[in-house]
Amino acid sequence: MARRNGAIAETINKPMGQVFNLQEIEEGLQKYRPVLLFLTHGESSGSTVQPLEGVGKTVYNCLLLVDSVAAAGGVPLYADDWEIDCIYTGSQKVLSAPPGASPISFSEKGKEKVLKRKTPVRSFYFDMNHLSNYWGCEENPRRYHHTGPIMSVYALREGFSRLVEDGLENSWATHKKCAEMLHEGVERMGLELFVQDKSVRLPCVTGVKVPAGVNWKEVADYAMNQYKVEISGGLGAQAGKIWRIGIMGYNATPDNVNRVLRALSEALKHVGFKSRL
Amino acid sequence: MARRNGAIAETINKPMGQVFNLQEIEEGLQKYRPVLLFLTHGESSGSTVQPLEGVGKTVYNCLLLVDSVAAAGGVPLYADDWEIDCIYTGSQKVLSAPPGASPISFSEKGKEKVLKRKTPVRSFYFDMNHLSNYWGCEENPRRYHHTGPIMSVYALREGFSRLVEDGLENSWATHKKCAEMLHEGVERMGLELFVQDKSVRLPCVTGVKVPAGVNWKEVADYAMNQYKVEISGGLGAQAGKIWRIGIMGYNATPDNVNRVLRALSEALKHVGFKSRL
Repeated sequence: MARRNGAIAETINKPMGQVFNLQEIEEGLQKYRPVLLFLTHGESSGSTVQPLEGVGKTVYNCLLLVDSVAAAGGVPLYADDWEIDCIYTGSQKVLSAPPGASPISFSEKGKEKVLKRKTPVRSFYFDMNHLSNYWGCEENPRRYHHTGPIMSVYALREGFSRLVEDGLENSWATHKKCAEMLHEGVERMGLELFVQDKSVRLPCVTGVKVPAGVNWKEVADYAMNQYKVEISGGLGAQAGKIWRIGIMGYNATPDNVNRVLRALSEALKHVGFKSRL
Repeated sequence: MARRNGAIAETINKPMGQVFNLQEIEEGLQKYRPVLLFLTHGESSGSTVQPLEGVGKTVYNCLLLVDSVAAAGGVPLYADDWEIDCIYTGSQKVLSAPPGASPISFSEKGKEKVLKRKTPVRSFYFDMNHLSNYWGCEENPRRYHHTGPIMSVYALREGFSRLVEDGLENSWATHKKCAEMLHEGVERMGLELFVQDKSVRLPCVTGVKVPAGVNWKEVADYAMNQYKVEISGGLGAQAGKIWRIGIMGYNATPDNVNRVLRALSEALKHVGFKSRL
């Protein structure tokens, strides 16, 4: 996306299932000296949560942009304290609203950068100068920009209401508890979790290794047909090698974890998997 | 929007409330020799419908792009016969679904142009190479592009279903009948329609001149407060000078026209307007 917009994009890489430490991030920054660092907070493909505390201090001379689509609301997140300049999430993850809307937030530094740019944003629809006016974020009278997707806005508001009623800290605790239940249950079946380091496991999405000789799709199909439980497959290099189980937002309940475990356990029996435990 | 994307955009102009004839379009094409001609079918600010028949023949050496947001479904439209290369509409007009989705269609010539481009589309989200694959318009296996706004898709499908059940020709006839009822009723009150030429009045949106001495907003507020009927104001040069009344899709019924006429008539009495008729 950055390259399409004429940016020079450099990458630092870690194998899927692992995250960056501060030193690795700092080395990348020193090597490339970017104007903006982009990090994914909840990496749903690898089911990891990238630690963000301290990164803002490291990027003192550039902007920090964070994708928290699969994490915000499910894990601790302090956008201001962590000096994140721009962060967005999705309506359809922890907020449990239908997909189609993306809450976005800017720091003062980020806002200034965006609003003071001299070249027009290439996409009219993603022009924050228009959007901030349209959403009443500034004092100028509101101008027409687009016909608002009003149903998505109401749904998003409802998603936020549920999260606020629950309380952020409670939501984080529930996600942690449910993820740990899931992890323990999966390991009791003789399966192995994809992410080794417990401290960077994303509670919202759990990667589980597909054992040798087992067809991931047969298991997922069984869970869907018998329990209406959708278990996703891996993406990219992990296609066919892991299952991905999402437990988040409205669905993050012990009952649902037990339901998934029952579905998975029966499905494994169905395909003839025998645990070595 | 075109200029933001690096295009050289030239314009041909008509006063609001009027449309182009074929000769004017041809003169513009000969003057600028564009690779693409953009026309708005239903011009909701001026409440006109731009005749499109024959334009496709005129633009033999360039592409024809049409915005039919405020017209498709409410007036005759033959995208193939009229050789339109790309046409889109909105979910929230005649289709009567919530805003947030835009059906779009390409001719073979338009499709070829888009799919064979060599520079990447600047916006990932508007890249038709991805979108056509995602929507199953080609034979390649579907790849992930975005999480579909599924509620909008269902709502759009329902909007199309209603239109199909009604029948396109019936829908065009209903819109024509309702618009004529509205035009006659408004003129009986001593008001004047904004568009002089009957043949280019957009049935979906009707512009009505605000008489001298009348505050458009007071009238609109009265209609809203007493009848829950929303009457829009003019935009740009017509701000304060016209009202705009939308009668379209699910709302295009004689009952609704009568309701609007009653609201408008009472509101005018309320603000002390005396017809000269």
